[in-house]
Amino acid sequence: MYSLNVRDHFMIAHSFTGEAFGPAQRLHGATYVVDATFRRAELDDDGLVVDIAAAADTLRGILDAMNYRNLDEEPAFEGENTTTEFLARAIFERLAAALRGGELGEAARGVHSVRVTLHESHVAWGSYEGSP
Amino acid sequence: MYSLNVRDHFMIAHSFTGEAFGPAQRLHGATYVVDATFRRAELDDDGLVVDIAAAADTLRGILDAMNYRNLDEEPAFEGENTTTEFLARAIFERLAAALRGGELGEAARGVHSVRVTLHESHVAWGSYEGSP
Amino acid sequence: MYSLNVRDHFMIAHSFTGEAFGPAQRLHGATYVVDATFRRAELDDDGLVVDIAAAADTLRGILDAMNYRNLDEEPAFEGENTTTEFLARAIFERLAAALRGGELGEAARGVHSVRVTLHESHVAWGSYEGSP
Amino acid sequence: MYSLNVRDHFMIAHSFTGEAFGPAQRLHGATYVVDATFRRAELDDDGLVVDIAAAADTLRGILDAMNYRNLDEEPAFEGENTTTEFLARAIFERLAAALRGGELGEAARGVHSVRVTLHESHVAWGSYEGSP
Amino acid sequence: MYSLNVRDHFMIAHSFTGEAFGPAQRLHGATYVVDATFRRAELDDDGLVVDIAAAADTLRGILDAMNYRNLDEEPAFEGENTTTEFLARAIFERLAAALRGGELGEAARGVHSVRVTLHESHVAWGSYEGSP
Amino acid sequence: MYSLNVRDHFMIAHSFTGEAFGPAQRLHGATYVVDATFRRAELDDDGLVVDIAAAADTLRGILDAMNYRNLDEEPAFEGENTTTEFLARAIFERLAAALRGGELGEAARGVHSVRVTLHESHVAWGSYEGSP
Repeated sequence: MYSLNVRDHFMIAHSFTGEAFGPAQRLHGATYVVDATFRRAELDDDGLVVDIAAAADTLRGILDAMNYRNLDEEPAFEGENTTTEFLARAIFERLAAALRGGELGEAARGVHSVRVTLHESHVAWGSYEGSP
Repeated sequence: MYSLNVRDHFMIAHSFTGEAFGPAQRLHGATYVVDATFRRAELDDDGLVVDIAAAADTLRGILDAMNYRNLDEEPAFEGENTTTEFLARAIFERLAAALRGGELGEAARGVHSVRVTLHESHVAWGSYEGSP
Repeated sequence: MYSLNVRDHFMIAHSFTGEAFGPAQRLHGATYVVDATFRRAELDDDGLVVDIAAAADTLRGILDAMNYRNLDEEPAFEGENTTTEFLARAIFERLAAALRGGELGEAARGVHSVRVTLHESHVAWGSYEGSP
Repeated sequence: MYSLNVRDHFMIAHSFTGEAFGPAQRLHGATYVVDATFRRAELDDDGLVVDIAAAADTLRGILDAMNYRNLDEEPAFEGENTTTEFLARAIFERLAAALRGGELGEAARGVHSVRVTLHESHVAWGSYEGSP
Repeated sequence: MYSLNVRDHFMIAHSFTGEAFGPAQRLHGATYVVDATFRRAELDDDGLVVDIAAAADTLRGILDAMNYRNLDEEPAFEGENTTTEFLARAIFERLAAALRGGELGEAARGVHSVRVTLHESHVAWGSYEGSP
Repeated sequence: MYSLNVRDHFMIAHSFTGEAFGPAQRLHGATYVVDATFRRAELDDDGLVVDIAAAADTLRGILDAMNYRNLDEEPAFEGENTTTEFLARAIFERLAAALRGGELGEAARGVHSVRVTLHESHVAWGSYEGSP
């Protein structure tokens, strides 16, 4: 099993609903350092899991759509607590759609799983992993 | 599959028994930087894998019981080589018991696997992963 | 010259004023991983730069006063762009006051410089250094 | 499931063939920081996944055979694009052979999977995982 | 004293001349993760050391001129051992020229020192620091 | 001003004397990840701050003399609290003596300052810097 990972980041504001969140119910924010990991059983004809530049560009585009925003006002996340693990899945779904749509090239269709990890600090991270 | 990780550390003295350990048979010590990773298939009603503050507190409590101690004199580890991988399992067992006992809340019972990783330096780590 | 560093973090929302900031003029946020570095020429009678637990507690208290907040609404920062380097100085000033006020103990008065570094992502950080 | 990881690095020159590689078709190079992760279900009689010193020595020997070289001129890689993921597998195969040959000791035969990860920068890594 | 740092990387091939270099006399290569740190006594009118986006763009341009190349064939480095510390200075000189030339904006002329650090692995780095 | 840094680690047991140390008065231990940073104004004839292999070997030798030991029983540290900052100076003194004694080569006599940093965890480090 082969893996390839690219890293980038985005910076957002948000707040959480529910007593479980304590002071995080207030409007605050986070830097998320994002790892996108692509997995497949065999390499493509160029000896790659995915084209690393294409993977980085696709991830950058997905993050740009959320970067420097208040997620409480994003229609896509209405009524949701945009926790680290929730956002990991949201980014996964967008990466999976890009893979299915051929945005990372035809060869990238051989990718059978993707994991998205969001590091919210030096002591905490969350992730989501699934099939595209 | 969702994951959430919290990180903390503890500092101990110990020695190892067996020629395989060479100079590590002498009394020495280590800082272990600990990652506790919780996994589950679906998020709870708050959009969480586990309450991150509860997870951090539970981990802190488990590490406090070993912190600033000589593990050679801990009854719980009598007759054992407290290697990095052995300690990863010991901490896993205590976290698993906390999850089963409801210490991380009722919703945390949805966690189906836990991995505990101990970083003993910038070049070595060990881990144990299992079901709580 | 001796140094001692403690690390912690806080999570805030804010926005910037001025065309130079581009999309960061929108309400967004950041995780800041904070390093507080204390320097002195000679160690105190216990062989310390500062008591590491006292330093960590004092830093934690300063960060708690900003944590999980929208800095745009903090009276202390009214009319200011709370950039990384600006916040580094703000935290420095509060640490310096704590040192002068004896909050880190009498021995800590021997500290002659403090540097506060805020890591805003894996690729950028800012700092401020001065005498307390 | 237990894991143990050792880290080391090597520095090489190489070039890639194929338009997909853009400027990386030119002769360039990389530092690869390598993680070798060994996994097994039960610890050996010493409480170990593998002897950490033996694992580090074996990995060092494998990396020395490639270190400070131009991989374009290595007979073992003739006609191949020595991408990060390709090299991860090449190192995996050599570690697997060492395990099967008893180089890490008889007890290390209990290792049932190995993952080799090559970090090529602070934002990208590739890996290969399989059974020895 | 304020500082602001941006990080990026480049990947090159090179070889060294002189017995002191041992096996590094062979053609090999490196990934250099580069930190460019700008320092000044007072912030500019926007509350900045330098515009972080302008700093990152300028650094990227300087690294692009060396990226994916064999430094042994670069006229600028003819007759030189392109050691980590030598390259740190070469990048410093280019950043200093960009600052003096106004490429980072007029306000950036307030920067009075720059440090360039090249991380060549997880265990070694070199740097050069001077006035622009 | 040029710098070159090499990193290594050692693992020890110790205890502290004095109420200020709280639970750290008990026998415990630490992994110290050590950075040795050498500084000079001009490079030597090979384009180096110091020979990196010689620097790494000298540091390794100094750490080996303390590695896998109980510092409470080391004659060199009798009556001392072997705090992180104290140990940073102790290692500095040994590196400085090695430089003065020519162990890093004649060219290394151009080094005019050395900083030794000991990382005791992911959240704390101490250092000592001086002239050799």
